[in-house]
Amino acid sequence: MSNPCIICVAITGSVPRKEDNPAVPVTIAEQVESTQAAYEAGASIAHCHVRNDDQTPTSDPDKFAALKEGIEKHCPGMIVQLSTGGRSGAGQARGGMLPLRPDMASLSVGSNNFPTRVYENPPELVDWLASEMLKYDVKPEIEAFDLSHIFQAVKMSADGRLKKPLYIQFVMGVMNAMPVDKEVFDFYVHTLKRLAPDAQWCGAGVGAGQILVNEWSIAAGGHTRT
Amino acid sequence: MSNPCIICVAITGSVPRKEDNPAVPVTIAEQVESTQAAYEAGASIAHCHVRNDDQTPTSDPDKFAALKEGIEKHCPGMIVQLSTGGRSGAGQARGGMLPLRPDMASLSVGSNNFPTRVYENPPELVDWLASEMLKYDVKPEIEAFDLSHIFQAVKMSADGRLKKPLYIQFVMGVMNAMPVDKEVFDFYVHTLKRLAPDAQWCGAGVGAGQILVNEWSIAAGGHTRT
Ligand SMILES: [Zn+2]
Ligand SMILES: [Zn+2]
Ligand SMILES: [Zn+2]
Ligand SMILES: [Zn+2]
Repeated sequence: MSNPCIICVAITGSVPRKEDNPAVPVTIAEQVESTQAAYEAGASIAHCHVRNDDQTPTSDPDKFAALKEGIEKHCPGMIVQLSTGGRSGAGQARGGMLPLRPDMASLSVGSNNFPTRVYENPPELVDWLASEMLKYDVKPEIEAFDLSHIFQAVKMSADGRLKKPLYIQFVMGVMNAMPVDKEVFDFYVHTLKRLAPDAQWCGAGVGAGQILVNEWSIAAGGHTRT
Repeated sequence: MSNPCIICVAITGSVPRKEDNPAVPVTIAEQVESTQAAYEAGASIAHCHVRNDDQTPTSDPDKFAALKEGIEKHCPGMIVQLSTGGRSGAGQARGGMLPLRPDMASLSVGSNNFPTRVYENPPELVDWLASEMLKYDVKPEIEAFDLSHIFQAVKMSADGRLKKPLYIQFVMGVMNAMPVDKEVFDFYVHTLKRLAPDAQWCGAGVGAGQILVNEWSIAAGGHTRT
């Protein structure tokens, strides 16, 4: 088996609530239990968001610490990836959990539109988050919502702002950002190979396109995200 | 001559000042004179920004009205395109000149990073600017700073939010957005042909890549921007 496929499980995003789907794990206990089930089914990375008691998303480092501890205890060897995404906080609060030294953290390196607003990742904040990840030895997963984000990640990696080799996630299917499109997917894979031959990548289809993007990713030798 | 090449002249951007280059036309009189020279040399579209007396960019409708009047008088038949770009104003002020009913106006349909900040084009503002352009019969030039912006423009056109056929400008070379890259350029052209076969397009290289992107655009049957 020359290139095993990594399954990254996003147990709890930042948006869906119990009202939307009663199966969404929201409390730390529910999240640990759900992660353990995924771990036993073969997932190797846990992509983590945390919630307040009213289910709203937060970047609270204490919540992240409790979740990280629970996953490490119940899922030995599983890679813990904490989200620094902008739905859960603003500015440097988005990186407040990095001193916990998780194995990985998500990192957006560009800006784009979301369904109702701008997903803001100003250059200065991106550089600060990247420097914190270097400081605490946290491996970034780059969230590429558009083609230029791949170029930006490669540039930051060449500049020494990101530890090599790159790990990039292609995100498709978010309204007002990049839709699920096979030619674009193929061009993403081709472009990353051209610019950073040693990079690893995974594909994430948000919503209806999830299984399709999983299939494309496995067929193209990439990793997958639930 | 089956498909003539349109030259769009950007006489004054929003950034450079007399200190940077004494030849930059800043006053309305200078801008009209400079546009006339370009018009006599063969340019057919004037892409216009206006400035305050201290050279800072503005969206002031009165300044735009004076410039439009001067160009129409001295360059009969030239297409006047006014910028609704975000460097010259914020929110709906960016579209305050649309009631002047210029032939064209620029329109960004997504967000991305600029050298030091986020270029913010929230979905609601994009839709408002597009609806004003429909209301005043202004033809938009879509400024595509990234690949998803092409998809968004095609979607807006299919929804009836933009008048067909599309006119798109591929912008390359802005730091922290899409760099000047030939494979991406070719993929832009290919993707637009696939999604909107009747669209017209032009390529703009900002800074050092300008002539290169002009050459690529002419060779690929597109239009050009100075
Ligand atoms: Zn996430
Ligand atoms: Zn992943
Ligand atoms: Zn402009
Ligand atoms: Zn143009």
